[in-house]
Amino acid sequence: MNKIYNPTAETWSEILKRPTKTIDDIEVTVKEIFKEVQKKGDEAVSKYTSIFDGIALDNNEVSQDEINEAIASISEELKEAIQLAKNNIYKFHSAQKTERITIETTEGVNCWQEKRPIQKIGLYIPGGTAPLFSTVLMLAVPAAIAGCNEIVLCSPPDKNGKINPAILYAANLCGVTKIIKVGGIQAIAGMTFGTETIPKVYKIFGPGNQFVTVAKQLATQFGVAIDMPAGPSELLVVADDTAVPAFVASDLLSQAEHGTDSQVILVSTSKTLIDAVENEIQTQIALLPRKAIAEKAIANSKLIYVENNTVALELINEYGPEHFIICTEDDDFYSDGIYNAGSVFIGNYTPESAGDYASGTNHTLPTNGYAKNYSGVNLDSFMKSMTFQKITEKGIQNIGKAIEVMAEAEGLQAHKNAVTLRLAQIELRK
Amino acid sequence: MNKIYNPTAETWSEILKRPTKTIDDIEVTVKEIFKEVQKKGDEAVSKYTSIFDGIALDNNEVSQDEINEAIASISEELKEAIQLAKNNIYKFHSAQKTERITIETTEGVNCWQEKRPIQKIGLYIPGGTAPLFSTVLMLAVPAAIAGCNEIVLCSPPDKNGKINPAILYAANLCGVTKIIKVGGIQAIAGMTFGTETIPKVYKIFGPGNQFVTVAKQLATQFGVAIDMPAGPSELLVVADDTAVPAFVASDLLSQAEHGTDSQVILVSTSKTLIDAVENEIQTQIALLPRKAIAEKAIANSKLIYVENNTVALELINEYGPEHFIICTEDDDFYSDGIYNAGSVFIGNYTPESAGDYASGTNHTLPTNGYAKNYSGVNLDSFMKSMTFQKITEKGIQNIGKAIEVMAEAEGLQAHKNAVTLRLAQIELRK
Repeated sequence: MNKIYNPTAETWSEILKRPTKTIDDIEVTVKEIFKEVQKKGDEAVSKYTSIFDGIALDNNEVSQDEINEAIASISEELKEAIQLAKNNIYKFHSAQKTERITIETTEGVNCWQEKRPIQKIGLYIPGGTAPLFSTVLMLAVPAAIAGCNEIVLCSPPDKNGKINPAILYAANLCGVTKIIKVGGIQAIAGMTFGTETIPKVYKIFGPGNQFVTVAKQLATQFGVAIDMPAGPSELLVVADDTAVPAFVASDLLSQAEHGTDSQVILVSTSKTLIDAVENEIQTQIALLPRKAIAEKAIANSKLIYVENNTVALELINEYGPEHFIICTEDDDFYSDGIYNAGSVFIGNYTPESAGDYASGTNHTLPTNGYAKNYSGVNLDSFMKSMTFQKITEKGIQNIGKAIEVMAEAEGLQAHKNAVTLRLAQIELRK
Repeated sequence: MNKIYNPTAETWSEILKRPTKTIDDIEVTVKEIFKEVQKKGDEAVSKYTSIFDGIALDNNEVSQDEINEAIASISEELKEAIQLAKNNIYKFHSAQKTERITIETTEGVNCWQEKRPIQKIGLYIPGGTAPLFSTVLMLAVPAAIAGCNEIVLCSPPDKNGKINPAILYAANLCGVTKIIKVGGIQAIAGMTFGTETIPKVYKIFGPGNQFVTVAKQLATQFGVAIDMPAGPSELLVVADDTAVPAFVASDLLSQAEHGTDSQVILVSTSKTLIDAVENEIQTQIALLPRKAIAEKAIANSKLIYVENNTVALELINEYGPEHFIICTEDDDFYSDGIYNAGSVFIGNYTPESAGDYASGTNHTLPTNGYAKNYSGVNLDSFMKSMTFQKITEKGIQNIGKAIEVMAEAEGLQAHKNAVTLRLAQIELRK
């Protein structure tokens, strides 16, 4: 762990630097696979599933039988936990629904804004040892609330041609309309272009390794939208002597176990707290199954002492953490003043893992400083805002002159004509 | 004009095809300029301003004197028109403000969502013969309502080192905090990396030629967000015998004068209306100053006859027009059923130019089929949605078990520990 005392503002950007990735090598591979899937469809998808997942599949769509089998294999305990999480996510995201906003901006000029669902969306759920069924909840629940017609889920098959049952269970529970056994670059390419079995979608959501990340970026060049750019997960905790060192350590470690490139930062106005957290980390880390991963992330972690809350807040806004935990005497100071963070966790009994699973907030959040300019996934991520307007004869008489003058000044005569003709016709009828 | 009668659904994608652009050549140039601006800052910016705009500037920031001069040079008539438009845009976008949404998802688990402004934004306004001061209103007004701290505007200088006075007037009126005389790729690169005089921003908005478009795409690879991907402007009108042919023709022409690559489509259930509009276009086009441009766009335009409203709506949703005008007997059928459109204009007295300038809706809209997955610019475009949560002892007791079970099932032991430690401490104190 790197302890840093009272860093000057000039050194912040260096201290808060995130690891840079080189994606040039990957890009060539991703482009090639995209080209092949675009041209050959399922044939290419099968080929790459064979190569990357080591399994030849006759049929890549998950059947109802497989779903039933998965449902039967999940313990009641896990089913209840998933149901509780789903209910909370449903409640929080349902509350985000917005009504039509209507304004008569000038007499006779009625404008309104309405949100309508994106009709076809794709969810990518990685395979591997940690089956991220929680991410299925985080994406499929708001998609269903939004009213998306088609909710396609792609996840790679294991060596036996199966998808983890918890993923299938969650997908079935949350209204996914089609589940396909395909992973990696070929999954993203399939949802971008559409194949015989994979529907083309308008927006792709979900996490993934660096191949998937680059593939999602490439998809945007073919008209597909994505949830947000991805990077390693990160957590920043601000804590003072009112915090419980063991809790803070456990939160930092829950971030550290994600991956060796996870970003873990503690900012504190108390040197005592920093030392106590450091000790607690040593104790707790020894018992973790993912100790090797956590140790690497912790080795790169930063424990930063600053003199007061004002400096701390400034430094945190400069960093823009994905997850931000506040355990201080003056929590409101931080929660009111934070501008750049994905999700904020307040108080000693609000661990990050609550938001990762079951409190109801979304865990798909901007990393890598993107909290400065991107929202985390929320109900609106599955909708588009559209505007409507209806102008009466009186209305066009009220604003027509202004339109004519502005169109003329911009040199757009036909724009002006469209108003002039209408005004003239109204005059004629008088 | 291409008249098409009753096209079968299989031919729609061909008929509705938009022109494809090749951007490979441009990309090399854009990348080079980015690299140079990143490395050399203002020195590189000055160099490219000399090359592309033909002027060497000692100072590229617009001074208060220049702004005052611009204000003095604008006619009262234009000032009044801009003020009227600004008021309507302000009213419509202010109405889009949302309150904090708070939900207690489970007893003791309080979650809320709040929107906070993106702190630094950049607006790009093209130069050239048509000074797009209306776009200044469309971007700066909602940015100011959102509460963005820094609103930087870049626009290229003319041969005399000036920016069009109407642009300066509008920028000053709407709360732009800094105006810089820089255009094209070097402007986007400057706002991406920051230079001695150009502030680094978090999100870039605004239209531009294909160089600017590719530069904005490249900016996203360096952590900057953009409003949306850009393409040629487009209009689709659906009209029947209740429409006024002269009005429809004037709307199609106001789209056509934008550029030779503008997309202009009329869909109708009336062959009589189609023929009448065709005649009106011939009459009106002859008088336009931008006749040459409009003629080329009109030559590629499509007049499509379909048998009924249901087919028409399906075809229109498949296309996803930027601007969608409805002039039919059953307007509600279309306005209720349209899922893919940027902005919708309803009735005979609602020309597209109303929304372009003064009705209050935003004119920065998704083109190129992006209406299927992107919102037009609105108040939220200048904000990020953040979530917050505060859990009590009771709350973590209520959801703790579910978190533990799910974390365990995902193989993330440290996530579980963060809860287990807290629950144990609560138990101990009992």
